[in-house]
Amino acid sequence: MKERVFKDPVHDFIYVYDKVILDLIDSKEMQRLRRIKQLGISYLTYHGAEHSRFSHSLGTYEVMRRILDKLSRKGELPLSEEDKLLCKVTALLHDCGHGPFSHSLESVFGGSHEQWSKDIILGDTEINQILAGISSDFPKKVAEVIDGKYHNKLVVSLISSQIDADRMDYLLRDSKATGVTYGQFDLDRIIRVMEINDGSILFRTAGMHSIESYVLARYSMYWQVYFHPTTRSGEIILKKIFKRARILCQQGFDFYLPLCLRNILTDNSRVKDYLKLDDAFMFTVFQYWSHSSDDILADLSSRILNRRLFKRIECGITDEIYEELVILFNRLGINPDYYLVLDHPSHISYDYYQPEDEHSKNPIYLEDKQGKINELSQLSDPVRAIAGKKQVMYNLYYPRDMILSGQGEIYDKIKNLLSISK
Amino acid sequence: MKERVFKDPVHDFIYVYDKVILDLIDSKEMQRLRRIKQLGISYLTYHGAEHSRFSHSLGTYEVMRRILDKLSRKGELPLSEEDKLLCKVTALLHDCGHGPFSHSLESVFGGSHEQWSKDIILGDTEINQILAGISSDFPKKVAEVIDGKYHNKLVVSLISSQIDADRMDYLLRDSKATGVTYGQFDLDRIIRVMEINDGSILFRTAGMHSIESYVLARYSMYWQVYFHPTTRSGEIILKKIFKRARILCQQGFDFYLPLCLRNILTDNSRVKDYLKLDDAFMFTVFQYWSHSSDDILADLSSRILNRRLFKRIECGITDEIYEELVILFNRLGINPDYYLVLDHPSHISYDYYQPEDEHSKNPIYLEDKQGKINELSQLSDPVRAIAGKKQVMYNLYYPRDMILSGQGEIYDKIKNLLSISK
Amino acid sequence: MKERVFKDPVHDFIYVYDKVILDLIDSKEMQRLRRIKQLGISYLTYHGAEHSRFSHSLGTYEVMRRILDKLSRKGELPLSEEDKLLCKVTALLHDCGHGPFSHSLESVFGGSHEQWSKDIILGDTEINQILAGISSDFPKKVAEVIDGKYHNKLVVSLISSQIDADRMDYLLRDSKATGVTYGQFDLDRIIRVMEINDGSILFRTAGMHSIESYVLARYSMYWQVYFHPTTRSGEIILKKIFKRARILCQQGFDFYLPLCLRNILTDNSRVKDYLKLDDAFMFTVFQYWSHSSDDILADLSSRILNRRLFKRIECGITDEIYEELVILFNRLGINPDYYLVLDHPSHISYDYYQPEDEHSKNPIYLEDKQGKINELSQLSDPVRAIAGKKQVMYNLYYPRDMILSGQGEIYDKIKNLLSISK
Amino acid sequence: MKERVFKDPVHDFIYVYDKVILDLIDSKEMQRLRRIKQLGISYLTYHGAEHSRFSHSLGTYEVMRRILDKLSRKGELPLSEEDKLLCKVTALLHDCGHGPFSHSLESVFGGSHEQWSKDIILGDTEINQILAGISSDFPKKVAEVIDGKYHNKLVVSLISSQIDADRMDYLLRDSKATGVTYGQFDLDRIIRVMEINDGSILFRTAGMHSIESYVLARYSMYWQVYFHPTTRSGEIILKKIFKRARILCQQGFDFYLPLCLRNILTDNSRVKDYLKLDDAFMFTVFQYWSHSSDDILADLSSRILNRRLFKRIECGITDEIYEELVILFNRLGINPDYYLVLDHPSHISYDYYQPEDEHSKNPIYLEDKQGKINELSQLSDPVRAIAGKKQVMYNLYYPRDMILSGQGEIYDKIKNLLSISK
Repeated sequence: MKERVFKDPVHDFIYVYDKVILDLIDSKEMQRLRRIKQLGISYLTYHGAEHSRFSHSLGTYEVMRRILDKLSRKGELPLSEEDKLLCKVTALLHDCGHGPFSHSLESVFGGSHEQWSKDIILGDTEINQILAGISSDFPKKVAEVIDGKYHNKLVVSLISSQIDADRMDYLLRDSKATGVTYGQFDLDRIIRVMEINDGSILFRTAGMHSIESYVLARYSMYWQVYFHPTTRSGEIILKKIFKRARILCQQGFDFYLPLCLRNILTDNSRVKDYLKLDDAFMFTVFQYWSHSSDDILADLSSRILNRRLFKRIECGITDEIYEELVILFNRLGINPDYYLVLDHPSHISYDYYQPEDEHSKNPIYLEDKQGKINELSQLSDPVRAIAGKKQVMYNLYYPRDMILSGQGEIYDKIKNLLSISK
Repeated sequence: MKERVFKDPVHDFIYVYDKVILDLIDSKEMQRLRRIKQLGISYLTYHGAEHSRFSHSLGTYEVMRRILDKLSRKGELPLSEEDKLLCKVTALLHDCGHGPFSHSLESVFGGSHEQWSKDIILGDTEINQILAGISSDFPKKVAEVIDGKYHNKLVVSLISSQIDADRMDYLLRDSKATGVTYGQFDLDRIIRVMEINDGSILFRTAGMHSIESYVLARYSMYWQVYFHPTTRSGEIILKKIFKRARILCQQGFDFYLPLCLRNILTDNSRVKDYLKLDDAFMFTVFQYWSHSSDDILADLSSRILNRRLFKRIECGITDEIYEELVILFNRLGINPDYYLVLDHPSHISYDYYQPEDEHSKNPIYLEDKQGKINELSQLSDPVRAIAGKKQVMYNLYYPRDMILSGQGEIYDKIKNLLSISK
Repeated sequence: MKERVFKDPVHDFIYVYDKVILDLIDSKEMQRLRRIKQLGISYLTYHGAEHSRFSHSLGTYEVMRRILDKLSRKGELPLSEEDKLLCKVTALLHDCGHGPFSHSLESVFGGSHEQWSKDIILGDTEINQILAGISSDFPKKVAEVIDGKYHNKLVVSLISSQIDADRMDYLLRDSKATGVTYGQFDLDRIIRVMEINDGSILFRTAGMHSIESYVLARYSMYWQVYFHPTTRSGEIILKKIFKRARILCQQGFDFYLPLCLRNILTDNSRVKDYLKLDDAFMFTVFQYWSHSSDDILADLSSRILNRRLFKRIECGITDEIYEELVILFNRLGINPDYYLVLDHPSHISYDYYQPEDEHSKNPIYLEDKQGKINELSQLSDPVRAIAGKKQVMYNLYYPRDMILSGQGEIYDKIKNLLSISK
Repeated sequence: MKERVFKDPVHDFIYVYDKVILDLIDSKEMQRLRRIKQLGISYLTYHGAEHSRFSHSLGTYEVMRRILDKLSRKGELPLSEEDKLLCKVTALLHDCGHGPFSHSLESVFGGSHEQWSKDIILGDTEINQILAGISSDFPKKVAEVIDGKYHNKLVVSLISSQIDADRMDYLLRDSKATGVTYGQFDLDRIIRVMEINDGSILFRTAGMHSIESYVLARYSMYWQVYFHPTTRSGEIILKKIFKRARILCQQGFDFYLPLCLRNILTDNSRVKDYLKLDDAFMFTVFQYWSHSSDDILADLSSRILNRRLFKRIECGITDEIYEELVILFNRLGINPDYYLVLDHPSHISYDYYQPEDEHSKNPIYLEDKQGKINELSQLSDPVRAIAGKKQVMYNLYYPRDMILSGQGEIYDKIKNLLSISK
């Protein structure tokens, strides 16, 4: 096949040399990712964050291609041609199971995005057909790599580790799209100091500072972008919409509910239904719901469409105060199940770097000139400072507009408890 | 009001100092622009082109703010405070009337986007309420500026001329998003050499090359991005979808057609309906339509969703060949009204610079140190070379997949005429 | 005065509004800084590091101007017009006393660069004349600000603190010139969150991560650029050249020694002589010296000109080994005073951030919404991890070329001790 | 040899795989280029233009390496390994014969820089030794390539044509260093559309706009940077200094004149002398000369050191006025041979693109999908507009400071003729 390129704002060009990669990009399941934003609802905070999972998937493929190219050129890559293709294919497909609003709603759709990715790869899809064209067990192999169970652990490590193609692409891409410069690091240099040692990925100590800089970029992006309180507010509202819709569905309430979505909400989800869902579809649903006769569903849906988000109280809300607020909200007929939300982002795994964590069995190792191998946080003071720490944030989200516009004693009490005034 | 900022990938920060600007940004009509891509269907060509009209609207406002700031600091701006606010407000709102896929479908929705902008500004909308809060005739003034009929012609020129805030923002933004570097130019320098002379905008000759560079950037972007044949292919399919839907609607065909869209297609469009339309809504409609029992509507809709575009034959198709192809297509049952499309982008106004054009009454003037005023194309060889030229392209678009997969004499004849082979 | 601008690769444009600033830029003492590289000998490591003190001085002025502009616009700057001018002037002039190769040779020229700056400002110079034209005591005030003794401590803090115009400019400029991306941070955001509280500089806690990112940028630049072992090697050779020249001068050795340099080496340095010295002058002197009849002076000078640097042994050299090497070098006639150099960069003050240090009386303080003030390292894990730490490096530098080319028992012993082989 | 890299601000990294390339970089003749600025005296206009010929030489090598790499990967490069090495070596060495201030003084030093390059490559130098180590006739081959006389014309074309590694590097590098954005173009894309057809370089028509954009970048850089009037003023003064020095030397005047420079000025130049000259050396000489007892030499030298440049009158100076000025200047004792300079930059070859020019035997050809070959200016309107045009500028340079400070009738007449007033 002749070289094909895609112009890319992050990597300048994305190079494709395999017909199968091109076919996968053209598959309808991958094209669907064009309609799913990479950062879910984050664009309500950073208006530039409008890039899609599709762009990120191409980027992940390209970073993987460069890694393989670099290691091959140095003659260091103990992988068969099939395993190399497996790496590139999996890099491209790893996110094909994402649903609307990416991570923001992952919990709602009955399964992790990795599970959905595997279902799509193994199911009755164009992707499956293309992969089966390589060899009948290729789809299974891709699924195994995603699962981390593929027999060649080097392939697994290349796809998913502390410094993998996925993370390197999303940090650079999200940083560029939002305009937040802290996510930038030196991709070329990291690839240059990457080595394979006994089937595992290592980095030369000479590149220690570029890797340190990558870990710190991740740390910064978490706090500046991924956990941004405004984004969290949008995510909370999204989840509450689905909580409400699920209850209404269970109650047999009559409202706009396309079959594919009904199947998902009643846990009869099938790949075919799931693939119909994307951000566009959900926005249309929200538009219908914003005219629903259920006030809560209508209000929350309209909040997402028109960016009327909940406000945040940063700290100092004791359990007593919270309980008192619940009572007051109830007395006003503002359902606290939907409108008074405690959020502890500490529950989210802080994955900017945790050498000892269950999930990340792949600490970052560096090899010095003498062949001595050290784990990154042993060498870097700032990395050690943030490694594995769980920073706890306590936030309370509520609809300030509703409270501010209200009059009377109860409203005054709430305003007082929340220390807000016009 | 305290200064408010928005992080922006193009201008770094967007600064807001007026409460009314903030309120307009928060209005639901402006928030709707987040769901309309700035470059319509271009993201099928340049996957990075995923930015919205909303981002561009903020950017246009910011460029205008900087222009006003610069001219005010030099004490050169003969505008009242109200007229300055009018400039900023109009810069922000100028695109609020865009419909799904921006320019790509503008002709379909019964009116130019400028007309819709005015209808929204003067209609029963949040935007109208906010503007009326400034003064009762403020909405009318904004509409007049958009129309070019406002009494103070300097305000009109600032909003719409050969080098205005709108164009400067979209060139920089589209260039950055696509990754096509040719759209870059030196915004700061252009603003620096801008002057007001006798109520008109002039530029100091010292900045001639930066302005030349801006015109050439526009020229490059037209041919590299805006008229890209792949994008044209997508736009053609979009238009054919609507052509089909309109006919089906007239015929009383039974298909998914939400009321707001039905009203538009039957020319009963009202602002209220129009505001429900956005890219997300249309993608959902296309998903329904891709399962329609009308084959043409189903096929074309699925083509947009899954990016199976028409291919292009670049030249050399004579009228005779075209007529022969029409006959052959008809014999195969492939309706040439939808599947055999001649495209002459020369019909599109080549607005990278036309000093004498009817539409652009504002040629670019430069003033030298001696006070002599020259029109740009008199001073610049490369600008003169492209000014006002209509470069004609003749392209034929057709579904190569359908033809390639076919067997038999007629198919062979078509393949022969189109000089294609597997 | 009309606005004047300078195109700058870091800040895009540098804006000058004061005639006195323009005159100072045009003074011959400032123009001399064009012939002194900002990073001394670093360009032997990073070939892009060819920028001058002059560029950095303009940049420092511009950052100061933006800080003052920002604080003034917010109405927060309790400074008289004269004190504002003092800030801008001192920002521009703060480095006018730098000698050849900037910091690399500072110890050689009889006084810190700050001392020389003051001597130039107070001496018989064009700078002094221009400053005296403002008011007779203005030169003295500038010198006092450089000394940190000016009565208005806010002026002193603006010029010199943990986050000042000087440091922000050099990090960005050095990072851009070397191509090392780690020195980048968000200058605009830091200026935006800067506040004056009770005559001191504070930062709003909202901007904590941008400041954290600045401190980490500094940390990275120290280890990646400023302390780079190749650069250290060049600096060691530079110092040894001067050590040798001084001894030869004392011994009455006959060699090329222009009067201005002789005066410096015999501690009769005067401003007039000092101002004749710049990188260009020293390179010419080195060219003469490279043909000197003193072998050591000739060899070391030629090493700098032709980049034949000493090599480094990273660690593990015990005192015994060092002593043995001294003996062996002596036996070979390779003078260990010049050719066997232990280097402990820990002696250099690690100024990326030391809240408790004598020298840096200005820790970074942040103020949260409730008005509570915290020191940065209390809030930031990674900053705390690096704050005030002295990381010790032990390196041995020697001329590997000399050793490798030698034959015989002694050479073999040395090679063995240094574990080197062809 | 193991891969070696150099961090580069333009190309990010420069990759070296050949020991001979590394040795050449380390040669003293190449290290000398670190002390010669790429843009001569341009840094007096754009203070960022402080980069050296050395950086540009590395960059030219790297662009050549990428071109060869790209063509080799596509299997399109009909070159032996030796010819490939020849390309890389010549790219690196092509500018080794530049003297102080690069092009600004080229005419002064008795021979073009290409001639000096060949003399260095064939003479008694480290470069010659390294090249002879490849094969005894390798130095001759390199010289032949520089001369354009090497038998394999493809090698010659790769080194020197309208779009070669040299030009692509300097446009990008000069643009980045000055901060003038107009010199940017899409290097990767141009390399991607490059092809070898029948031993000649062609470009695919698909890349026409990227090449158009490169030609326009060159056009812009000429007028914005290379011919900038302030830079021309500096160059004029430099040349007048040497004119004066040469006369003084012929007259036997007693002044500081190092032997190597005396040899050059008396046309006894030898490679050995020439290699001692660099910017640093000349600045030191200028410092001595600024204290010379010859007023003209002293004044002009001090002007360059302290940036007191001549001012420019842009147009309208007739022969009569010029003659009158000469008389008046003479009457004031201001020697018009040095202080009244007419400058016609039209004499400089406008090499942004001249398809028919003697010197540039290599017009740019593009090949379309049908295999038809067109010359660039046939396809591109803006390129045709500027191709081969000689734009004539008439400027008069003179020392405004001298005239403004003067009193009396003659001065008034001059001021009047030059239309200047305080």
